[in-house]
Amino acid sequence: MATRVFSFLAGHRGPWQITQISCLVGEPLPPAGRLAMVTGTPDSSPDPVAWTLRGIRSNERYVNRQERGQLTGAQQGLGRPASSCAALIPIRKTAAWWMLTQDERRAIFEEQSHHIQVGLKHLPPVARQLHHCRDLSEQEPFDFLTWFEYAPEYESAFDEMLAEMRASEEWAYVDREIDIRVVRDP
Amino acid sequence: MATRVFSFLAGHRGPWQITQISCLVGEPLPPAGRLAMVTGTPDSSPDPVAWTLRGIRSNERYVNRQERGQLTGAQQGLGRPASSCAALIPIRKTAAWWMLTQDERRAIFEEQSHHIQVGLKHLPPVARQLHHCRDLSEQEPFDFLTWFEYAPEYESAFDEMLAEMRASEEWAYVDREIDIRVVRDP
Repeated sequence: MATRVFSFLAGHRGPWQITQISCLVGEPLPPAGRLAMVTGTPDSSPDPVAWTLRGIRSNERYVNRQERGQLTGAQQGLGRPASSCAALIPIRKTAAWWMLTQDERRAIFEEQSHHIQVGLKHLPPVARQLHHCRDLSEQEPFDFLTWFEYAPEYESAFDEMLAEMRASEEWAYVDREIDIRVVRDP
Repeated sequence: MATRVFSFLAGHRGPWQITQISCLVGEPLPPAGRLAMVTGTPDSSPDPVAWTLRGIRSNERYVNRQERGQLTGAQQGLGRPASSCAALIPIRKTAAWWMLTQDERRAIFEEQSHHIQVGLKHLPPVARQLHHCRDLSEQEPFDFLTWFEYAPEYESAFDEMLAEMRASEEWAYVDREIDIRVVRDP
């Protein structure tokens, strides 16, 4: 069976050097120097970790067939050699969001906020992988962990994509968001 | 925070007497005499358990605003004194189902299989609570656990509802299903 659970460990070890942790809304995360993405949920770590976040690569909840075709045609995978920059962006959405029905969430997500179309504009330079946290347990600190990889020359385009997302109607339902930037050792 | 994770423990204890465990498709579950529904994930049980299944009461994935209005108007809660019969029906869906996009799953679920409308015909006599398992971990044996409660005189209507569901297009994507019937001690 393919591994679906992934954990992000922040501490003194890991291939990614943390360059910035910005808290946009809600409670911040403690500072740390390095970040590792590992498969599964580590029972214990040989090194002290500042924090661990975990999520599951699950089925898509909003994308329709036509959009999946566009995404599959455009997106590239993680681990491209030129992608020496990455970002981990954990977000939590409000109780009001989760009380909406599927058709209402979809309407805000795409018809009003153009989440998929905004993302498509920036593929393939930005590779993206979503992890769902909400149903792993009832104590998860975030609902989603999104991991992005890109080459250094696309950082300003990546920032523009985030600014466009954050100005959308959908982001009115985000009550915690941290933006963690990392670079890979040469 | 409201408890969202629930566990079903089958063994020698619990308020529900198991009267039948029928395996409709896929691997069966071991026999057991009693069933208990508890909040959370028990770390250990003082009594030997035959099996434990757990799921999370999560946001709805298919119901639209109009349907939620119909459901909210019709359905009654769990724990009604007259509901001395109950059923736990764990199901797993195929990989092909999870590869469908949201609009395709919704079309099979409701426009073709009338899952919500079939359920509505039998509310309020049958109370229903869905638990999602799929994103709790990557080792869960089922995708969904549905718990139904009803008075003994509605058992044949309940069986008709299940027969209608199981004859639907949606059930072509079910590759494991167990039907566990229980009665409450007087």
